[in-house]
Amino acid sequence: MPLLAVGSVALDSVETPFGKREEVLGGSATYFSTCASFFGPVRLVAVVGEDFPDEHVAFLRERGVDLSGLARRPGRTFRWTGRYEFDLNQAHTLDTQLNVFADFRPELPEAYRDSTHVFLGNIDPELQGRVLDQVRSPRFVAADTMNFWISSRRAALLATLGRVDMLFVNDAEVRQLAGEHNVVRAARAVLGLGPRAVVVKRGEYGALCFSGEEVFAASAYPLPELFDPTGAGDSFAGGFMGYLARAGGLDHHTMRRAIVLGGVLASFAVERFSLDRLRSLTPDEIRSRYGDFRRLTHFEDLEVDILEGNGTRG
Amino acid sequence: MPLLAVGSVALDSVETPFGKREEVLGGSATYFSTCASFFGPVRLVAVVGEDFPDEHVAFLRERGVDLSGLARRPGRTFRWTGRYEFDLNQAHTLDTQLNVFADFRPELPEAYRDSTHVFLGNIDPELQGRVLDQVRSPRFVAADTMNFWISSRRAALLATLGRVDMLFVNDAEVRQLAGEHNVVRAARAVLGLGPRAVVVKRGEYGALCFSGEEVFAASAYPLPELFDPTGAGDSFAGGFMGYLARAGGLDHHTMRRAIVLGGVLASFAVERFSLDRLRSLTPDEIRSRYGDFRRLTHFEDLEVDILEGNGTRG
Repeated sequence: MPLLAVGSVALDSVETPFGKREEVLGGSATYFSTCASFFGPVRLVAVVGEDFPDEHVAFLRERGVDLSGLARRPGRTFRWTGRYEFDLNQAHTLDTQLNVFADFRPELPEAYRDSTHVFLGNIDPELQGRVLDQVRSPRFVAADTMNFWISSRRAALLATLGRVDMLFVNDAEVRQLAGEHNVVRAARAVLGLGPRAVVVKRGEYGALCFSGEEVFAASAYPLPELFDPTGAGDSFAGGFMGYLARAGGLDHHTMRRAIVLGGVLASFAVERFSLDRLRSLTPDEIRSRYGDFRRLTHFEDLEVDILEGNGTRG
Repeated sequence: MPLLAVGSVALDSVETPFGKREEVLGGSATYFSTCASFFGPVRLVAVVGEDFPDEHVAFLRERGVDLSGLARRPGRTFRWTGRYEFDLNQAHTLDTQLNVFADFRPELPEAYRDSTHVFLGNIDPELQGRVLDQVRSPRFVAADTMNFWISSRRAALLATLGRVDMLFVNDAEVRQLAGEHNVVRAARAVLGLGPRAVVVKRGEYGALCFSGEEVFAASAYPLPELFDPTGAGDSFAGGFMGYLARAGGLDHHTMRRAIVLGGVLASFAVERFSLDRLRSLTPDEIRSRYGDFRRLTHFEDLEVDILEGNGTRG
C-alpha cells in the first residue's frame, strides 16, 4: 500500500569518537525512505537546494524512492553539524543551517494524495498537519517530533497528535510531552492525546511500544561496532512503516514485527557513517538479523513445579 | 541443590522522590536470600551487630534462609544511607558506616561446605576468594562487584574472576573493568578473564547476558510504580541463582529462564521500599509476571516474501 514520507533531506557533518565526515548525505526523510524502500516504494516530500549533489538523487531513485515530491529550490540545502561523545545516545548539535528548509511548505503531487500510510518526519507540527490535509484517506499515520516543538509549538503539536495513529518519541520527549517522569505513565498520558500507539525509542537500549494496555519491549541489537547514531530514529521509523505498508494489517503480530524490523534497520544504519551501511544492505541481511533478534530475546516457558508451593515456609 | 550466599546484611536509610525510610532492612545478602528463597533454601554467610532487630532474623528464618552462618558480633550493624533522584538508575551514597562489617571474615559452618551453587555478593574480592576456599566442589559460582573494588583491588578481583562462572556487573562497571567503552566488546574482554558468562545489568533497561558467542537481551519490566531501586541487582542475582540451584542444569534454556526470573524478582523488589514488596510476594505472582515478561518481549517469525527480492531497484 502506498507509503508517503515527509521530512528533511540534508547534508550532515558529523564527528564521533570513531571518525569524522563532512557534508555527507543525511536528513530524516532520507534515512526513512532508504530503510522503508527495502519493503516497497516510498513517496518522498522534501526540499533541497541548488547545491544538492546529483549522486544523492540518483541513489534515492535507485532505491525505488519516488522523487516527484522532492522540490529543488534556489539556495543551499539544509545542513546539520553534530558531534557525539562516547555516550552515543546523545547528539550535540554544533550548527544548524536551515537554508531552503526554512521556507519548506510541503506540497503533495496529485499522485501522492491516495497514500494510505504516512510518515510525518520531525518538522514543524503545523506543516505535519498541512501534509495530512492533502492526503485523502490515510489508513495509518505516524509522526516523529522533538523537544523543540514540544516546548515551542505545543498547541500545533497537540492538534497533530489528534490526527495520528502513532507517535515516535524518545525517553526525554515522552516525559516532556506528558509532564511525567515515569515512562509508563508518560506514554499512557500521551495515548490520551490521540495516538493509539506510542513508541518510546531508547537508543542502544531498544524501544517500548505502548498501545492500549499492551506493552511491547524491543531490545536493540548489541553492536560491537557502532560508528554513527545519526538517523537511527528515522531508520527505525522507516523499517517500521515500510513493513507496515507492505504487510497491510495492523494486528498485534504485525505491529510487533514492524517494531523489530525498525530495530533491525536502525542497527544497520549506525554501523557506518551516513547511509553508507544501508547502501550495501541486502534483504538477506535484514532477514538474517531479524532472526538474530529472535534468538537474542526469546526464552521458554517456566517449568510447572519450579517454585516453592507456598510463599512463606516455617 | 544447596545454594550459598555471602554478602552484607544492613540497615538502610533511603530517600527517593517518592518517600523516605530510616533504618530499614537492607544489604546484598538479604535481598539475594529472600529472592532466592522462593525456589528453595539458602545458606547465608554474613555478620550483624548487637543492635540488629530480632524481627529481621525471624523474617529471614521464615523465608527458609539457613542462618547458621549469620554471625552476631559486638558493635553496630552495617549502615548505608543513600538518596535517589528521578533518575532511579543512579544511587547517591550519603553515608556508609561499616561497623561490624569492617572486620567481616566469612567463616562457613561445616554443613555449608558441600554447597554446589555459590553467590559472592559485593564484598572485598579477597574475601570472596576466601569463601570459595571453604567450599569443597562448587558447580556454579556467581560474583557481584563494584567500581570501588575494580579500581582499588584489581589484582584480587582478577584472581577471583579466574574462579567464578558468572559475573554480575552494570554498564559502567563492565566498561571500567575492561577499559573499553563498547559494552559488547567490554563483556567479551571480561569473558577472557575467566567467567564463562557475564551479566550486564542496565537498571530500568534490563540486562544483557554474554556467554561464548551467545547474547541474551532481557528487558526489564516497564513499571508504572517504582519506589526504591535499592537491592534490585541483588534481587536479580537472587532470582537467577535461586532458580538455577533449583533447576539443576546449566543449558541454554535454563540460563535464559534464570535471567528472566532475575528480572522478575528485581521488578517486584523495586515496587516498594526495602524488602516490603518481597514480604507479601507469592509464587503465583512470580509465575504470572514471568508470563508477562514473555508477552512483553516475544514476536513471530517474518513472512517469507515480505522483503523486496533484491537490494536495489532500477
